[in-house]
Amino acid sequence: MREILLHEPLDMHLHLRDGAMLRTFAPLSAHSFSGALIMPNLVPPVTDGEMVRAYRRRILDAVGDAVFEPYMTLFFKPEYNREFLEPLTEEITAIKLYPAGITTNSEGGVEGFEIDALAPALEAMSTLGIPLCIHGETGGFVMDREAEFVPIYEALADAFPDLTIVMEHITTAQSVAALDRHPNLYATITLHHLLITLDDVAGGMLRPHLFCKPIAKRPEDREALLEAALNAHPKVMFGSDSAPHPRHAKEAPGCAAGVFTAPIALPVLAELFSRHEKLENLQHFVSNNARQIYDLNPPKKTVRLTETPMRVPERYGDVVPLFAGEEIGWSIDSVEIE
Amino acid sequence: MREILLHEPLDMHLHLRDGAMLRTFAPLSAHSFSGALIMPNLVPPVTDGEMVRAYRRRILDAVGDAVFEPYMTLFFKPEYNREFLEPLTEEITAIKLYPAGITTNSEGGVEGFEIDALAPALEAMSTLGIPLCIHGETGGFVMDREAEFVPIYEALADAFPDLTIVMEHITTAQSVAALDRHPNLYATITLHHLLITLDDVAGGMLRPHLFCKPIAKRPEDREALLEAALNAHPKVMFGSDSAPHPRHAKEAPGCAAGVFTAPIALPVLAELFSRHEKLENLQHFVSNNARQIYDLNPPKKTVRLTETPMRVPERYGDVVPLFAGEEIGWSIDSVEIE
Repeated sequence: MREILLHEPLDMHLHLRDGAMLRTFAPLSAHSFSGALIMPNLVPPVTDGEMVRAYRRRILDAVGDAVFEPYMTLFFKPEYNREFLEPLTEEITAIKLYPAGITTNSEGGVEGFEIDALAPALEAMSTLGIPLCIHGETGGFVMDREAEFVPIYEALADAFPDLTIVMEHITTAQSVAALDRHPNLYATITLHHLLITLDDVAGGMLRPHLFCKPIAKRPEDREALLEAALNAHPKVMFGSDSAPHPRHAKEAPGCAAGVFTAPIALPVLAELFSRHEKLENLQHFVSNNARQIYDLNPPKKTVRLTETPMRVPERYGDVVPLFAGEEIGWSIDSVEIE
Repeated sequence: MREILLHEPLDMHLHLRDGAMLRTFAPLSAHSFSGALIMPNLVPPVTDGEMVRAYRRRILDAVGDAVFEPYMTLFFKPEYNREFLEPLTEEITAIKLYPAGITTNSEGGVEGFEIDALAPALEAMSTLGIPLCIHGETGGFVMDREAEFVPIYEALADAFPDLTIVMEHITTAQSVAALDRHPNLYATITLHHLLITLDDVAGGMLRPHLFCKPIAKRPEDREALLEAALNAHPKVMFGSDSAPHPRHAKEAPGCAAGVFTAPIALPVLAELFSRHEKLENLQHFVSNNARQIYDLNPPKKTVRLTETPMRVPERYGDVVPLFAGEEIGWSIDSVEIE
């Protein structure tokens, strides 16, 4: 029976919501991850230090005794400047930029990407060493939105060479290729984008629980993502983008965008890397790369995964996870903290 | 106020179902169309003369007093031969070929497209002058399935030059281009594929009522379809592929494929052609081309459409139509029969 020990696994793109959902879902991530980069797209979005501190406190309350570090983010506003950001450098790990209206709760996001308009905020972040995470999609045709955004990523990377820019939840071969053209471009990849293509969402039946933004793309895109993740590309980090939506919001017409994967992410990743004979690279994908890129020192936690099948629950609370009710080949055997 | 008279409008690709659904939906098509090519993918499929006659009788019963010609089709089987088909030439207008498992109730379809295996049936159809209608999709990636099938269309068109081959409900620029390379290739285009792209299905929200097979493609594909339809390409016919599925089957995960458009098709087409200043070409798209290609002599019926707004019903029976609850700019003013 194969097994692997993962040290300090990190989920570098996580939606924990707030209120009752937070209390249900934070413990599920805190069980198997050492820490996670927490997305700020609440209603209203997290846009100042007080909101960051209050949200962090609510997360820690929800997590209880678990060893888990919520790495906090601010919701990017072009008006941020050095004076505003400097006192926050110890409290935030990154700032997340959403183009306006591009995904869940992104209405207050950025309307355009003129370098001049963004320069004061991005220069300040650059100077203060605060990474910029971007949901990189244009308002174009759904299959082209991310590829159309790559030139924007590249223009920002060129204009702010000392700014760490993370292309969030990349889904295309074009984004993977961009990583190697700019020293300051990095990326997160979700679990589901390593597994599915548009075929799974809409090729046979329409499957709302696989509907997400960015939408899953073409087989050759998934291949490029897999290649980067499996081979421990040093600029690529695991970020689940795990997004709990209540079942009724997923299954009704108008389906909310998001796939819920947090509690099964590590076993499914272990199975995937094992199947490709790349188990030795999983530690890099789920922890080491992120520690290096973000200069993190997460709390000690060792997760032992074994090739022991488990059945994924049909629901977590009122949320349907990826592989609901199905058997997966690996499971978490134990979690050790120091 | 603009208006147009349409003479003998025809829907050259229609799903009428059976039983209670047939009784609900046949009158809706019979109201505004002179006739329609009736798809044979019932359970079990329509595969012999007795089934054709019985289904035609059920359709006419459902239609009642309306003037409406159901042009009947057989579900293609490779074992069809001249002896079997010759007695049916007066009763069927075409034979519909489904690749196995490619869409609703197509499980008994064709498993492969080796010319030799299909030759006896297709030679017989060719000799007897029976057109072949094909749902042309491979089992490939959802956005490529139709384009991948174009070489199969072309091989069949070359191998059986006297066979009329209709590419059903085409959705891609590649299929439009193929029309001009083979004298015996024709096509139907639906209403919804003139209006929507994948963006409408999954670009913002996930919209199950716009989910169909073939799935709506890219903006440049829709442009090519529009160009052919609006300019009265002589090899292109209107075929709604209107497919009633009960609301629960559309809105639950696993969503049935199909868009229901039959009762609103003519007003929406009039609005579309009018907006593009091509109203004079609509008669060709919705009737003349089909009459020419299939050598039909449909019953006389004149539909007068005017630029008078109407609100589309939320439901027809338990089926949600395209533009449910929305206002469209044109409506049917009167239907005259001789």
